[in-house]
Amino acid sequence: MNVLIIYSHPNETSYNASIFQTVQKHLAPEHRVKIVDLYKENFDPVLRFDERHKRRDLLSWADQLIFIFPTWWSGMPAILKGFIDRVFVAGFAYQNGPRGPVGQLDGKAWIITTHNTPKIFLPFSQDYAKVLKSQILKPCGIKPVKMTQVTRVEYMSDRQRKEELEKIAQIAKRI
Amino acid sequence: MNVLIIYSHPNETSYNASIFQTVQKHLAPEHRVKIVDLYKENFDPVLRFDERHKRRDLLSWADQLIFIFPTWWSGMPAILKGFIDRVFVAGFAYQNGPRGPVGQLDGKAWIITTHNTPKIFLPFSQDYAKVLKSQILKPCGIKPVKMTQVTRVEYMSDRQRKEELEKIAQIAKRI
Repeated sequence: MNVLIIYSHPNETSYNASIFQTVQKHLAPEHRVKIVDLYKENFDPVLRFDERHKRRDLLSWADQLIFIFPTWWSGMPAILKGFIDRVFVAGFAYQNGPRGPVGQLDGKAWIITTHNTPKIFLPFSQDYAKVLKSQILKPCGIKPVKMTQVTRVEYMSDRQRKEELEKIAQIAKRI
Repeated sequence: MNVLIIYSHPNETSYNASIFQTVQKHLAPEHRVKIVDLYKENFDPVLRFDERHKRRDLLSWADQLIFIFPTWWSGMPAILKGFIDRVFVAGFAYQNGPRGPVGQLDGKAWIITTHNTPKIFLPFSQDYAKVLKSQILKPCGIKPVKMTQVTRVEYMSDRQRKEELEKIAQIAKRI
């Protein structure tokens, strides 16, 4: 399967970086894997109009998208929001139909995001990757979308960090 | 009162630009008004760590914030999300307390956002500026936060556009 990992964290020693490495390491060897490392490639997230962005080819190529990012202020880092703003555009990711958008993409997705909010508050909170799952990917035709939320990241012990990475490794292996 | 307008749209002939002009024109003359025009000043929205961003002085100065932006993919444009990521940082906008963040800012805010989603769907949708209001500004101590959502922007007649601008003008006059 064609797997595209879209990774968005500035710090190479972060827990997000560990997740990124874990996923790459545990994906089954028969997959073809491509990576968009938004910080490393200095992705410019600022949408201006009348542009055509080359990363669309990667999205069309992928059967499986994997998003890895920290949740900041309840949502995606700006660099990833800009990737969405610039690449998921009308005519490519969806068409406007009489009853709303008609998805033009296919394949499935896995969202892995980290934050410090206790799990118990998440059902009452806006966004926390729910927008990416239900209001961006699904309307574009990408489903199912699996969500892995690693909560209370700053307060985890080393053992808990390893356990979370092990869970992520198990999911990666089954892709 | 010190009024800070944070404006985020790339196109000078957009309806957001009309809103921006309407607000500026109708604010009472006794206010001191400053503007952050994120596109015009080529604001870099990409958060890297260990930075200190000069726009914090403007936020401390303001008694009233006015945000004007289009809602894209249910949320803020990347350039504005990056303004939040980079400027609303721990130690400045909030302090981490034992029961969560303690707001360090004061003043009030007005969010004006445009999108094409019918009003009837908004209570069931994630974000649409609710994150900015309730999960960013309020925890930082900024309240009350007034919200103006201009819906179905692409489908409005010229008369409807003028009526919406007139409503915005009336609110601006009372600030």
